[in-house]
Amino acid sequence: MIDMGSDLDTSVYRDRIVRARASMERAGVDVLLLSVGSDLPYLSGYEAMPLERLTMLVVPRDGEVTLVIPKLEAPRVTVRAGVFEVLPWNETDDPVAIVASLVARPRAVAVGDTMWARFLVELLGHWPSGGTRYLRGTAVMNELRMRKDASEVAALQAAGAAADRVATKLQQGDIALVGRTEAAVSGEISARLLAEGHDVVNFAIVATGENAASPHHHAGERVIARGDMVLCDFGGTMNGYCSDITRCVSIGEPPAEVAHAYAVLRAAQAAGVEAGVVGADCQDVDRAARRVITDGGYGEFFIHRTGHGIGMEAHEDPYMVEGNNSPIEVGHAFSVEPGIYVPGSWGMRLEDIVVATADGPLAINQVDHDLVVLG
Amino acid sequence: MIDMGSDLDTSVYRDRIVRARASMERAGVDVLLLSVGSDLPYLSGYEAMPLERLTMLVVPRDGEVTLVIPKLEAPRVTVRAGVFEVLPWNETDDPVAIVASLVARPRAVAVGDTMWARFLVELLGHWPSGGTRYLRGTAVMNELRMRKDASEVAALQAAGAAADRVATKLQQGDIALVGRTEAAVSGEISARLLAEGHDVVNFAIVATGENAASPHHHAGERVIARGDMVLCDFGGTMNGYCSDITRCVSIGEPPAEVAHAYAVLRAAQAAGVEAGVVGADCQDVDRAARRVITDGGYGEFFIHRTGHGIGMEAHEDPYMVEGNNSPIEVGHAFSVEPGIYVPGSWGMRLEDIVVATADGPLAINQVDHDLVVLG
Repeated sequence: MIDMGSDLDTSVYRDRIVRARASMERAGVDVLLLSVGSDLPYLSGYEAMPLERLTMLVVPRDGEVTLVIPKLEAPRVTVRAGVFEVLPWNETDDPVAIVASLVARPRAVAVGDTMWARFLVELLGHWPSGGTRYLRGTAVMNELRMRKDASEVAALQAAGAAADRVATKLQQGDIALVGRTEAAVSGEISARLLAEGHDVVNFAIVATGENAASPHHHAGERVIARGDMVLCDFGGTMNGYCSDITRCVSIGEPPAEVAHAYAVLRAAQAAGVEAGVVGADCQDVDRAARRVITDGGYGEFFIHRTGHGIGMEAHEDPYMVEGNNSPIEVGHAFSVEPGIYVPGSWGMRLEDIVVATADGPLAINQVDHDLVVLG
Repeated sequence: MIDMGSDLDTSVYRDRIVRARASMERAGVDVLLLSVGSDLPYLSGYEAMPLERLTMLVVPRDGEVTLVIPKLEAPRVTVRAGVFEVLPWNETDDPVAIVASLVARPRAVAVGDTMWARFLVELLGHWPSGGTRYLRGTAVMNELRMRKDASEVAALQAAGAAADRVATKLQQGDIALVGRTEAAVSGEISARLLAEGHDVVNFAIVATGENAASPHHHAGERVIARGDMVLCDFGGTMNGYCSDITRCVSIGEPPAEVAHAYAVLRAAQAAGVEAGVVGADCQDVDRAARRVITDGGYGEFFIHRTGHGIGMEAHEDPYMVEGNNSPIEVGHAFSVEPGIYVPGSWGMRLEDIVVATADGPLAINQVDHDLVVLG
């Protein structure tokens, strides 16, 4: 449990509550309910334990903000004057009934994305969806959280630099590969992410040979051998913000076809980054990268969207996917990670995080984009 | 990501689906929807990635069971004939609409407890809670999952034995305490849990001195000194099943008051275990432990329920709490963990896992229950 962002000044949270309420006004939301997930620490500095006892921040459009929390977890809370009041509940209380009692029946409620469904099921008993409209919390929070401020960009840069140091070790051959299992290499990458300053490792995909054709392959018992392509996609959370990078290395010179595909991939990734400018649509990033891969003849093998937003969560809005015609704004942070996956044969992906600025895309990752050939 | 229980024979999952449907029949549930959490691997052998792309097992009362899954995660699935069909969705599809299209509008839906609320919000757009009644997935799954079968009890015993080995090291003084921070000791306990065979550490609370008065204290920078009570509550997941144990050690002889309180706590914990017999109410376990502590004069300082169920999740039904008059049945596995917490001064807790059997409570943990005095 990382108490994410809890070192920020109380005034930051007060300001965020004010902005969340302005966003609620625009979205026609009467009450915002936040539980497990990143919205809660973003707004309050407190992170809910992901357990069966309900923690919920109740943010009505006007009036007091209340943190409903299990009594035995109340000592964990840093009380912040002017941000929220603490309302502890006892072991035999019904916390959802307490939440429902705090506000008049709302016409529209926004609930945090990763809140457990069991609590929403219970809330429907109090406020059926006939008379109350339910919205995703993102309807309120995206406006705040998608636009990273300077301190958030700095946190993304620090996490990105830590991940870059691990990726550089990979490219320099300082992480042994041949003769080791994917799982062993994944373990070493995880340990290095922590050693470089991450608080938590979120994932460390190591996919080799034909396994690399499965984009979410779980590092397994395959032993890495000469001739393999080794795809490493890893990231963690550091001071509340996430890193995420993918690099591939080839053990020995790759076949001409693979080298050619990588050249296409590299051009596609660069085109995606270049398209990520303020005012473009999110889907333009996807289209730019996809066009290069399609023109290169690999279109059918690029089977996922080009990118995802990143911040306090490893994946968050905005998504760089066909159909997302929301404009890119200053402070949007996202991955650009096209891939080519030939089932049963090989796979490759290249990923950086970028932040949209008035001066164009700011690269969070600085690691060599070439397909590095080792040993 | 542990693909929990995936090594079980396909016939086990087929049998569980049949039993889930019988439970749906009794509960009047037309469709069961499972996503992130333990119900899904329990029923299907597949564990959903906790990400924004929806994975959902759709179990209608009759007809085909369907696993709706992101296309790029489909290669992770072990297909099991007669358990479910795989329905991959593409990046630009609306997976919730796909789920809603698979069944006629239900009168009653049960949704998994830890599914992300965002998907339930979207589902309400298809099936408003006026015409469709929403129930917690536990209404269907508890009947199956609370009653551990022999192989599940064996898994709990294996995980418990691994945790016991770490607790024994603590009591033997093999884990250095004096002069170290709570966080450092927590880190060592975590490493030892992994070394003893756990796949994941779920928590390793180390709370010392006055910090122990906060039951969910996060191990911090307090340096352990002579005279401290050191409360350690830790557990992890091993082959899909959880361990959880709490032991206290005292650095030097404790003051008479603390020693007296511990004697009360020990008697309370034993009374709770003894009350955990088949046919008793769950709340009887709480009452039995609480009575001893109240009679001992510490009633106001026992501020939480006595226990929680345990299995694939660290906390699950049944809960040993006042108001839970459900009967204890053969195969119920739960913690018995009374505590005494004097704010600002000290705290103590003693916890074992037990399984209810026809022959009485089966102790999963075998570690000495005394307050061990070290140094």
